[in-house]
Amino acid sequence: MPRNPLQGAVDKARRFQTLHREGDILVVCNAWDGASARVFEHAGAQAVGTGSAGVAFSHGYADGEIMPREKVLAAIGEIVGAVDVPVTADIVTGYGDTIDAVVDMVRSVIALGAVGVNIEDSDALGEARLADASLQTEKIRAVCEAVRKSGVPIVVNARTDSYWLKLGSEADRLSESIARANCYREAGADCLFVPSVVDARTIKTLVGEIAGPLNVLAVAGCPPIAQLQQLGVRRVSQGSGPMRATMMLTRRIAQDLLSSGTYARFHDDAIPYAEANRLFE
Amino acid sequence: MPRNPLQGAVDKARRFQTLHREGDILVVCNAWDGASARVFEHAGAQAVGTGSAGVAFSHGYADGEIMPREKVLAAIGEIVGAVDVPVTADIVTGYGDTIDAVVDMVRSVIALGAVGVNIEDSDALGEARLADASLQTEKIRAVCEAVRKSGVPIVVNARTDSYWLKLGSEADRLSESIARANCYREAGADCLFVPSVVDARTIKTLVGEIAGPLNVLAVAGCPPIAQLQQLGVRRVSQGSGPMRATMMLTRRIAQDLLSSGTYARFHDDAIPYAEANRLFE
Repeated sequence: MPRNPLQGAVDKARRFQTLHREGDILVVCNAWDGASARVFEHAGAQAVGTGSAGVAFSHGYADGEIMPREKVLAAIGEIVGAVDVPVTADIVTGYGDTIDAVVDMVRSVIALGAVGVNIEDSDALGEARLADASLQTEKIRAVCEAVRKSGVPIVVNARTDSYWLKLGSEADRLSESIARANCYREAGADCLFVPSVVDARTIKTLVGEIAGPLNVLAVAGCPPIAQLQQLGVRRVSQGSGPMRATMMLTRRIAQDLLSSGTYARFHDDAIPYAEANRLFE
Repeated sequence: MPRNPLQGAVDKARRFQTLHREGDILVVCNAWDGASARVFEHAGAQAVGTGSAGVAFSHGYADGEIMPREKVLAAIGEIVGAVDVPVTADIVTGYGDTIDAVVDMVRSVIALGAVGVNIEDSDALGEARLADASLQTEKIRAVCEAVRKSGVPIVVNARTDSYWLKLGSEADRLSESIARANCYREAGADCLFVPSVVDARTIKTLVGEIAGPLNVLAVAGCPPIAQLQQLGVRRVSQGSGPMRATMMLTRRIAQDLLSSGTYARFHDDAIPYAEANRLFE
């Protein structure tokens, strides 16, 4: 009997699904290029996620959907190719004006070997508002149906952005996040992502009220990972924070070079050249 | 009269040439992606150089000429597109088995808007030996002739690797570096690059004996930039050091996430999200 050519991807997707249900909280390390992905994996990360902002910055673009679709897909492919662990792809609002276009983007991501997608309900045009809830729910439903048909059970992580966009009052954000997360869950999403929530009591309420695994973002003020696990959070990611930290280090290296003319910041604590090469062999 | 479509590149190449002859020592900041290039420029760098190792790592490859030619060109194009300052491209031994193929690579780099190339005389197969001196000289001569015909006076930086490869005795390295640099200069190279030399007296000898501008690499033990200038060095670059420092920071961020479950290393000193976005607008 011929082996299913997708079997490797199917196995990886199932393993990634399991990490959302069993064992400790899942730390998805957000990479921006092949090097960061490989370094995260080598350090023990169980899964890598692409982050839209980090990937965009790395290729010279602002965040959003400014970086062309084909370049985003190439970047996702490079990150998938750099590691053996499951990779989930941040595709912002889905890189498409229509549900069909978004479904096509998800199919492309699956074809690259990614086993997860993040789809957010921020306005695609960058306005500080959410997409219509019914339309967004239909988008998630169509994506989940396409995933089912693909035969590769990737993790659809539906993100809702009331906290991220600071919309309305704290009570508004909480109720909107719960309502939308549950709509997306009913439409088939495997994980629900509420970035920028940091208050422990609020996180506990989200865990209790959302009928599926919760993903939070490790922004400033976020409880440490052990506490997130105690609160019942299933997955934590970092967005562009690590990438922006490396950009600050790069800035400081440049400032040293151009003012004091010294090298300590890149000589004293760098992965040696030979070791860096071995990481990619 | 129609404006020469290459005029912008011609002006930039001339400006880059001048930076090798006039004013302070030129600090070429070695970038590996669009973000690092943009951060270097924003910090005041007068020129950016791609570094073969940093670019390779960023795209998930070991150093050398393992990363496919087309991907290297795309990466160079992204870095050129991310900044206004002159960009010089590290093309290792030239990405070609024949002189014609190397010339073709240089033409491709010029077409992308880069205004400099580094070409090294390490063995292209990764052996710790130098390419035949006569063949390498002919390669440099052919590249310089192609540059002249292109009408864009890019800076050809000819690198010689006796110190880099630790070949023979200290006296052997010095005499071989001087002899080869002068051959490459006679063949038309605009700048001569001797990486891994760190002793001040040796650097002074190289400056005195090589009949053209000298580029050194800021490896461990290298004198600070002010001292390099006093010694007569015209250009200093960093290779993959800054990139490998950001890889180490990435590793430490991962170790924190996966052991203590904390975020200080990417929260306490990162370029803020909004500011990072503005850098690319």
